[in-house]
Amino acid sequence: MSEPLPYGAVIGILGGGQLGRMLSVAASRLGYKTHIYEPGPNPPAGDVAHAVTTAPYEDEAALRAFAEAVDVITYEFENVPTSALDLLESLKPIRPNRRALAVSQDRLVEKAFLNDLGLPTAPFAAVDDLTDLQEAIAEIGCPAILKTRRFGYDGKGQVVINAPEEAEAALADMKGAPAILEGFVTFFKEISVIGARAQDGAISCFDPGQNKHEGGILRTTTVPAAITDAQRTDAVLLAAKILNKLDYVGVMGVELFVTRDALIVNEIAPRVHNSGHWTQAGCAVDQFEQHIRAVTGWPLGDGSRYADVEMENLIGDDMDRVPELAKLARYQVHLYGKAEVKPGRKMGHVNHIL
Amino acid sequence: MSEPLPYGAVIGILGGGQLGRMLSVAASRLGYKTHIYEPGPNPPAGDVAHAVTTAPYEDEAALRAFAEAVDVITYEFENVPTSALDLLESLKPIRPNRRALAVSQDRLVEKAFLNDLGLPTAPFAAVDDLTDLQEAIAEIGCPAILKTRRFGYDGKGQVVINAPEEAEAALADMKGAPAILEGFVTFFKEISVIGARAQDGAISCFDPGQNKHEGGILRTTTVPAAITDAQRTDAVLLAAKILNKLDYVGVMGVELFVTRDALIVNEIAPRVHNSGHWTQAGCAVDQFEQHIRAVTGWPLGDGSRYADVEMENLIGDDMDRVPELAKLARYQVHLYGKAEVKPGRKMGHVNHIL
Repeated sequence: MSEPLPYGAVIGILGGGQLGRMLSVAASRLGYKTHIYEPGPNPPAGDVAHAVTTAPYEDEAALRAFAEAVDVITYEFENVPTSALDLLESLKPIRPNRRALAVSQDRLVEKAFLNDLGLPTAPFAAVDDLTDLQEAIAEIGCPAILKTRRFGYDGKGQVVINAPEEAEAALADMKGAPAILEGFVTFFKEISVIGARAQDGAISCFDPGQNKHEGGILRTTTVPAAITDAQRTDAVLLAAKILNKLDYVGVMGVELFVTRDALIVNEIAPRVHNSGHWTQAGCAVDQFEQHIRAVTGWPLGDGSRYADVEMENLIGDDMDRVPELAKLARYQVHLYGKAEVKPGRKMGHVNHIL
Repeated sequence: MSEPLPYGAVIGILGGGQLGRMLSVAASRLGYKTHIYEPGPNPPAGDVAHAVTTAPYEDEAALRAFAEAVDVITYEFENVPTSALDLLESLKPIRPNRRALAVSQDRLVEKAFLNDLGLPTAPFAAVDDLTDLQEAIAEIGCPAILKTRRFGYDGKGQVVINAPEEAEAALADMKGAPAILEGFVTFFKEISVIGARAQDGAISCFDPGQNKHEGGILRTTTVPAAITDAQRTDAVLLAAKILNKLDYVGVMGVELFVTRDALIVNEIAPRVHNSGHWTQAGCAVDQFEQHIRAVTGWPLGDGSRYADVEMENLIGDDMDRVPELAKLARYQVHLYGKAEVKPGRKMGHVNHIL
């Protein structure tokens, strides 16, 4: 294993949202500086970063200057354009690696990768045109979900198909983008494993959390999840299998459906994950620091859980509840500094130590 | 009670060291931005601040611009020159207030204030010249400590007098600065109370920690302190008395000697305090956030202790131990991003969850 990045080194972070903000704070704890690259103005991460570049991902000169100013590059979201990544990778190491990004950027590639690893997913089929979609519906059945293969998050770029005659309208919603039809999975619970893999191959997973979604957006994550010891072990081993196969360095979120018979992988996110925010209140080292440790070559920290926690997202008008939440015992409030409250926008979260 | 500062408001922080750095991180958690004012280049707090002003405290234009850019002013150390504070106070509110600063900036004023409140201190006498010193030694006895009245920290500006004939040399060490002679207190333990007072007068104190100093510098703080329930109650009430008397808003560190018969106040610091760093690992809301809550008008958070913790400072070459400390279970590492390691310089700390 190589030496960790020297104290005072600069970590470049692609994306300036709340994940970048909390990564930046974690980096400061380990004595590192961060440099945020974000196309939008006034990124939340900019409030706690050493430097900010505001430029589109198509701006080669800005990308070059950014790469020159940093010692390693990581990212807080997976939809950075390939051309930007190609350029950056020629100048500085990107962690987690490109393979992890390529797999998770495309739902079809991701599911094929998982099945190749022997890990079950929802039934799926590629959809490029109406014929594909009709064949897919015939095979998978209804209801099913049509999703764009790329650039979807928080329920965006998705439409449920309840009957074959809805196919044409659903396909129109994809606006010509390559799509994937996924069958519904009858599941009892949604859980996620936040796993970390260091540069020396060491793996540490946080205790799986149990998720509740509303309208396609994560509402709460609770630890411990109400699962059996065997399921807990299986979930962690499954995450480790993915991390190893990708020669992954950093933190990954693995969302799982718990069915009667199996753990089905819903999706993987090659970054810190909303369902891991509880680690800020329940562990000596949280997911953000674990990620920074991995990408800078530190040993992974102690992520064992020492408290039961319920994390709740503050979405849109939930901000009106902050004055009351601020008074509650055993609550931590985390706000993201986003200028404008919008419906469906993640504005912050609370960690309730149970 | 007035409304809290609006989400997105800017908190000005005088001083850019590690305390400002951790205050800045806490401010971000509550959705606030920070602006650091620091005479020295590359302040540790600058890595996690929205803005930094690098200028001396004598630069009126810089002070004015800083005050205009922020909504409230606080500070991470107590030795800001009076002229700067006068100017700033005419432009924006300073919290904690000037009275708290005036009291704690001068050891003589501080001890008189405490005695007036009925709180015991070490015996003391003002020393302006050799005659004063000789009279003070005659009254207080030896050994005793001669200290500058102002601008001392981490054991600087202090000299122990073991015999009356050392008086002249000791006085020379004060370099003409007004001084105070303090008698030694025979104590069993040193503890400190980190107390917070909100704008509505509500008070919350963290569980007292037990301190170990080496060479005048804090080495470790351990919670819980090995004191009786009665001592714990007395310590907290004593801190509350000081906070109320000063109409204080913010976090204060109160260092106490535990003798056989009493709690003796060693000193008060009108700011977050090194002996409160353990709160990062043992409480839902740490001392830094508690301070930000107070100065911005939030209600105080839940500072009750849910873990036993030993905080250890990483001083100078202790940095060489970081690779080993990074691997330990139940340890949190906090580094301050200071460019240069020097003997006696606080480079970071670890919180060991016991």
